[in-house]
Amino acid sequence: MAQASTDTFIGTVALVEQYRKVRALTEELANQLSDADASVQSMPDASPAKWHLAHTSWFFETFILAEYVEDYQLFDDRFPFLFNSYYEAKGSRIARPNRGFLTRPSIQDILKYRRYVDSSMQAALPALPIEALRLCELGCNHEEQHQELLLTDILHLFSLNPLGPVLWAHTDAARENELPPLQWVEGKRGAVSIGFSGNGFSFDSEGPRHATWLAPHALANRLVTNHEWMQFIKAGGYESPSYWLSDGWAWVRQNVVEAPLYWRRNNDGDWQFQFGLDGVTDIVLSAPVQHVSYYEADAFARWAGARLPTEAEWESAAENLPIHGNLLDGPGLVKPLPKSDSSQLGQMYGDVWEWTASAFLSYPGFRPAAGAVGEYNGKFMSGQFVLKGGSCATPRGHIRASYRNFFSPHQRWQFTGVRLAKDL
Amino acid sequence: MAQASTDTFIGTVALVEQYRKVRALTEELANQLSDADASVQSMPDASPAKWHLAHTSWFFETFILAEYVEDYQLFDDRFPFLFNSYYEAKGSRIARPNRGFLTRPSIQDILKYRRYVDSSMQAALPALPIEALRLCELGCNHEEQHQELLLTDILHLFSLNPLGPVLWAHTDAARENELPPLQWVEGKRGAVSIGFSGNGFSFDSEGPRHATWLAPHALANRLVTNHEWMQFIKAGGYESPSYWLSDGWAWVRQNVVEAPLYWRRNNDGDWQFQFGLDGVTDIVLSAPVQHVSYYEADAFARWAGARLPTEAEWESAAENLPIHGNLLDGPGLVKPLPKSDSSQLGQMYGDVWEWTASAFLSYPGFRPAAGAVGEYNGKFMSGQFVLKGGSCATPRGHIRASYRNFFSPHQRWQFTGVRLAKDL
Amino acid sequence: MAQASTDTFIGTVALVEQYRKVRALTEELANQLSDADASVQSMPDASPAKWHLAHTSWFFETFILAEYVEDYQLFDDRFPFLFNSYYEAKGSRIARPNRGFLTRPSIQDILKYRRYVDSSMQAALPALPIEALRLCELGCNHEEQHQELLLTDILHLFSLNPLGPVLWAHTDAARENELPPLQWVEGKRGAVSIGFSGNGFSFDSEGPRHATWLAPHALANRLVTNHEWMQFIKAGGYESPSYWLSDGWAWVRQNVVEAPLYWRRNNDGDWQFQFGLDGVTDIVLSAPVQHVSYYEADAFARWAGARLPTEAEWESAAENLPIHGNLLDGPGLVKPLPKSDSSQLGQMYGDVWEWTASAFLSYPGFRPAAGAVGEYNGKFMSGQFVLKGGSCATPRGHIRASYRNFFSPHQRWQFTGVRLAKDL
Amino acid sequence: MAQASTDTFIGTVALVEQYRKVRALTEELANQLSDADASVQSMPDASPAKWHLAHTSWFFETFILAEYVEDYQLFDDRFPFLFNSYYEAKGSRIARPNRGFLTRPSIQDILKYRRYVDSSMQAALPALPIEALRLCELGCNHEEQHQELLLTDILHLFSLNPLGPVLWAHTDAARENELPPLQWVEGKRGAVSIGFSGNGFSFDSEGPRHATWLAPHALANRLVTNHEWMQFIKAGGYESPSYWLSDGWAWVRQNVVEAPLYWRRNNDGDWQFQFGLDGVTDIVLSAPVQHVSYYEADAFARWAGARLPTEAEWESAAENLPIHGNLLDGPGLVKPLPKSDSSQLGQMYGDVWEWTASAFLSYPGFRPAAGAVGEYNGKFMSGQFVLKGGSCATPRGHIRASYRNFFSPHQRWQFTGVRLAKDL
Repeated sequence: MAQASTDTFIGTVALVEQYRKVRALTEELANQLSDADASVQSMPDASPAKWHLAHTSWFFETFILAEYVEDYQLFDDRFPFLFNSYYEAKGSRIARPNRGFLTRPSIQDILKYRRYVDSSMQAALPALPIEALRLCELGCNHEEQHQELLLTDILHLFSLNPLGPVLWAHTDAARENELPPLQWVEGKRGAVSIGFSGNGFSFDSEGPRHATWLAPHALANRLVTNHEWMQFIKAGGYESPSYWLSDGWAWVRQNVVEAPLYWRRNNDGDWQFQFGLDGVTDIVLSAPVQHVSYYEADAFARWAGARLPTEAEWESAAENLPIHGNLLDGPGLVKPLPKSDSSQLGQMYGDVWEWTASAFLSYPGFRPAAGAVGEYNGKFMSGQFVLKGGSCATPRGHIRASYRNFFSPHQRWQFTGVRLAKDL
Repeated sequence: MAQASTDTFIGTVALVEQYRKVRALTEELANQLSDADASVQSMPDASPAKWHLAHTSWFFETFILAEYVEDYQLFDDRFPFLFNSYYEAKGSRIARPNRGFLTRPSIQDILKYRRYVDSSMQAALPALPIEALRLCELGCNHEEQHQELLLTDILHLFSLNPLGPVLWAHTDAARENELPPLQWVEGKRGAVSIGFSGNGFSFDSEGPRHATWLAPHALANRLVTNHEWMQFIKAGGYESPSYWLSDGWAWVRQNVVEAPLYWRRNNDGDWQFQFGLDGVTDIVLSAPVQHVSYYEADAFARWAGARLPTEAEWESAAENLPIHGNLLDGPGLVKPLPKSDSSQLGQMYGDVWEWTASAFLSYPGFRPAAGAVGEYNGKFMSGQFVLKGGSCATPRGHIRASYRNFFSPHQRWQFTGVRLAKDL
Repeated sequence: MAQASTDTFIGTVALVEQYRKVRALTEELANQLSDADASVQSMPDASPAKWHLAHTSWFFETFILAEYVEDYQLFDDRFPFLFNSYYEAKGSRIARPNRGFLTRPSIQDILKYRRYVDSSMQAALPALPIEALRLCELGCNHEEQHQELLLTDILHLFSLNPLGPVLWAHTDAARENELPPLQWVEGKRGAVSIGFSGNGFSFDSEGPRHATWLAPHALANRLVTNHEWMQFIKAGGYESPSYWLSDGWAWVRQNVVEAPLYWRRNNDGDWQFQFGLDGVTDIVLSAPVQHVSYYEADAFARWAGARLPTEAEWESAAENLPIHGNLLDGPGLVKPLPKSDSSQLGQMYGDVWEWTASAFLSYPGFRPAAGAVGEYNGKFMSGQFVLKGGSCATPRGHIRASYRNFFSPHQRWQFTGVRLAKDL
Repeated sequence: MAQASTDTFIGTVALVEQYRKVRALTEELANQLSDADASVQSMPDASPAKWHLAHTSWFFETFILAEYVEDYQLFDDRFPFLFNSYYEAKGSRIARPNRGFLTRPSIQDILKYRRYVDSSMQAALPALPIEALRLCELGCNHEEQHQELLLTDILHLFSLNPLGPVLWAHTDAARENELPPLQWVEGKRGAVSIGFSGNGFSFDSEGPRHATWLAPHALANRLVTNHEWMQFIKAGGYESPSYWLSDGWAWVRQNVVEAPLYWRRNNDGDWQFQFGLDGVTDIVLSAPVQHVSYYEADAFARWAGARLPTEAEWESAAENLPIHGNLLDGPGLVKPLPKSDSSQLGQMYGDVWEWTASAFLSYPGFRPAAGAVGEYNGKFMSGQFVLKGGSCATPRGHIRASYRNFFSPHQRWQFTGVRLAKDL
């Protein structure tokens, strides 16, 4: 956590309301899941939905209730072992790839756990000291992150089931749209400041705000579309090593990667369908491409004679834009949409996380928070790239220009996409 | 299937009754499982309980209903892909390690599937031709095998859960017992015949009945106990390569094997507990050791100055014994028990599967059944050892002297144990 | 070692001569190898030639010179760590997959080591006690085994080099030959004895001689040829799971196996060439197929409507045949040859090791030798199949009817082939 | 290659001399290697010395002789397949992990290849066009890189041999020295320019020169020493997850990392020795620590309450320093030395490559060279960190402030070490 002063705190009343809303949304997103859906782990990178539901509660219980509430009784003293994620300072824990073996507690038990934590938190909140309130704010933001992971993890699990289960019904809200041609929008030059500042919450890794230097450059006014991606495929993009990073080419060959994750061929062998939370549907050509890795994003950009934006280029361009776009408001849809506005620089927020050319490393003067919560971001600062702007699965209100998401270059089960940039 | 003539068929009336009982027992065994319990796959060797419930039904549907019942409608035409196990001749199927991703269909849907198959089978049975009746008999025996696997797979899954779920409550039925000293019972010598003959059902690999030659030898009158296994551990059995096969020693080192699977230490570091379907309980010292691999069984025998029996030695000794013992009658207990009878040669049936020194290979004149059901046993004839006698999880009525179970030498999640033999 | 009495010992004079000849042949086989050729390890199953040269010397030094010769000085006291193979009782040793990192000692140093051991042995031999002489005889037989391994390991290494190095020049000695049609030769029935007996050396696992029972059967009078194997390929043999063991099919798919090891396609995509110790040459269609795994041998037999012989069938048929055939006499050729004799049952010795349907397990009454040399065979008794008859790389004089070679079912870098059998 | 104009070219005469010297040094470094030493590959990351000798020659042959010399005859038309490294545009090649199977051509043949290329190059050089001369300059720099790799790869190979071969004899040139206390040297602030400019050769990834922004910071005036590393170990540095990146901690646990690579314990279990090109010697406590990974460097810095420098901090501090230090001049020593000068900011060049906190990514405006040589650096821009300053194995004359070496965070077989930095 990076807040420099109490000035930035949203206030207890607002926090109580935020807590209520965040906790409710998590359960809304999960409420169509069966006990089995919520228990299975589809790969080591993913977690069971039940685990997300419990771990986010464990966060409040461990860092706030157990620390600040006198005589607080743990709901179940075996849960800390089960639902700690990676906080070494908080003791031993079940190995990450084994989260899917916890068929008990059942989802009903986990929901009881949530009720217990919620009522304890609601009782405690008005009287908590400021440092606990800040932890609560962190916990809310932490849970919003897990809301997105819950959706992407369920999507991955369902994609492996030949029956193609859906989380919600298909609507025709993601329709084809006639796109304006791609335009280049010139960015700022010279010394600029990036990193979080001002009021409100931010994660520790978003600061401190600091100067950096931008060379002359431009950003595309919209995201790369499925249509453009099909052209890349037809041009032999996945078969030409010259477009690829060395590690990326090895990844393509070893995993026989031929298209974005969840794309599916029709009986003629053409890419026509994609699997989503609403099942198998036609690919919307004018919609932004999604579920591509950094390797793919980088190869596409090279093929297109462009490059990916740096984090600073993206952030300085986004900083004064209003935060609106295709973000998560509740259950339903969660798909990137064709560009609908006429703005110069569009789709900056929502739709898909945009891969940047910047490694996820610390800003000058970065200091992780003290104690276990300090394990939050800094320990992942190797081998990952920054993504900006949020996706259709990112809760509205959770995103801002300084937000730094990060994943490994081969990962693509998140809603990840591409915006092009170029040197001027 | 190995029946040589229609003489051996049990008759339609008996078969209808067998079908009903077998199908009912499977569901009784599973009826304490939650949807999540029944969906998770704990390792590639194991299958989800739901899968066992469905696959056994698929067997009847595929080999009997779809083949012999006019206008039979599949319950769901996507199920054959989901619930075929390994029958290459029956088309493509979900990869074995992916069975645990099928959170849908739910356990309720699977139970509906069972109902549908059961009513179709019960309607069809009286009029089926003899070859279909034989397939039904095979299907019942096949399902009995899956009953045992269902129990051992659930035990494995539950063992990985730090909460230690139980399938049923603990009773004190497995009590310590004062054992008679181990005695050696001399076996037959010279030419003997083994392999299935006579009336009733048998699997193809149990025949043909054929001559073999026995050298002078003796079998122990009882199984190796937990007490004896503790002595082996204390004597450094797991630390002395001289007792072990080369592959076995590599397995011990790589997996840090120190005791039978499911044994657990107390706070002093001593082996005191074991995990079972009734949870964590004290090890009963006079009870047969269980959940040991062939490698362990072989090393123990070498340490004890003895050896494992061959299949022919075991079978010729068992052939005229009545089939009684600690076998599966329904939900509850399922634990090996101390030797309680005074018979010379005891515990031959039930308690634990007994590792033999014989590889699982074909008998002279063996011919697999024609068609897909011929893939049943013959294709596993490399790298596996034969086990005899059945276990506490083997349905009573399913076992006979000629029965040939088989597993790889490192596997030990079944109820496997040891009887010693020696040359005379 | 299995000799039951001193009666079987060949005598000191003959042993001295055997020692000299064996040691000389090893060096003759290796004398075209560069220091690099002799140092590289091409896979964990193989060893560098230098290691074979040294390990065989270590055997004499460790079990005889260091034990029976007063004041014997080790050539280099670091060599026991380097050149012990797997004798746990003889202390720690370099891990098997790391043998190829020993670029020093050089091949010249190893040859000096051999000289040193040879002169010490020759000096010591006349005065050694009978148990040491027996160990020397064992050492000679052990070295003969390594002669064959040296050739097959070099072949494997050279096969990985795009330059295709050769150990010796190609000759046209392996010419096409018009083959008589395959004929079935009926075998013995009922009780027979197998296992070593009589005079001369044998390995411990070859005994004790014991009775076994043979069902009516016949053996093919010759080996399966390359021509027949091409028919198997053309018939889709490698693409039809129904011919394969379950493990075998997985092995075929995972390793993209399409033909015997070392077969190579011509520019039209047809199998025309094979790589051998004399480089790339045309496949001789009438010659026995070689470098096939047990999985392939078994699949071929099933496709051909036959089966593999059991060890007892093979041994009882071979027992009274003279041991002549295409065996190793010195450097040069080392290729299986088309059947050239008119004998009923031909090619029983030499050409290729013949896979049997028998697992490598102990005979009744088997007792490994005491001490470290007892680790010789017994510890490999799981997961392997017996091969009989020797190959073109087996030193003449090393083979006999009771000889039991063994390899894992996927291994095929030895000169391995197939003889068919069938039930009568 | 990044030269913007012909202004930067060193001139033909100087290039001819550079070519001669570089080629000669490579062979001097290798001339104590046996054919076996030069042929074995100790891990996939390393290459055989013979391969380095040949691949560097292949570079000149392929990019210059075959392209610019009329009627040039390849030395051996199979060599391009053998000695191409990763240039996809130059056709297929032997897989990297298989380089160690090339026991032929022998080292003598490779030296003949070098002679052939050298005489062809020397004949051709005076008349080559400027673009070929630039490729020759690139080839010389490329070969200097391989000189360092040749030494580090041989060191790794020799370290795996229990006999501990040496490349040259030990001298006492690396003696303990009384060190001045660590001091912090303040760096530049605000906008600075980094990246190559001026005359002479540079790699493409070193440019373009561009502005960047430095926050207030200081660098340590010397490298971290072995003594300081021992304190880190004693303080539990390798046992405390709080110091480590998440990936780093996993790497430590999985590989049981307890000290720098090549450190060895004495009989009391204390770290006393290190293995080097001169064999096993005492650790010199005042000398810089070497053979540590990025993970270790980062963990040490965190433990020390500091951080690693960024590339820009390092480069802007080094830019005006003379390039002197413990660099490679020829065979012998090649060990980091204690700080001997009194300069404020010392050991910036030579001794060890210094890990920076900067990912190896492209500079603004970076364009890889056209054609196959453009595969040189850009394709490795993911997952790697930049190292600066050169090591005791870096040829003098090869290093400059803008030089960007890069390795994966777990790699440590290079001469890699640590300089601390901190925010002001």
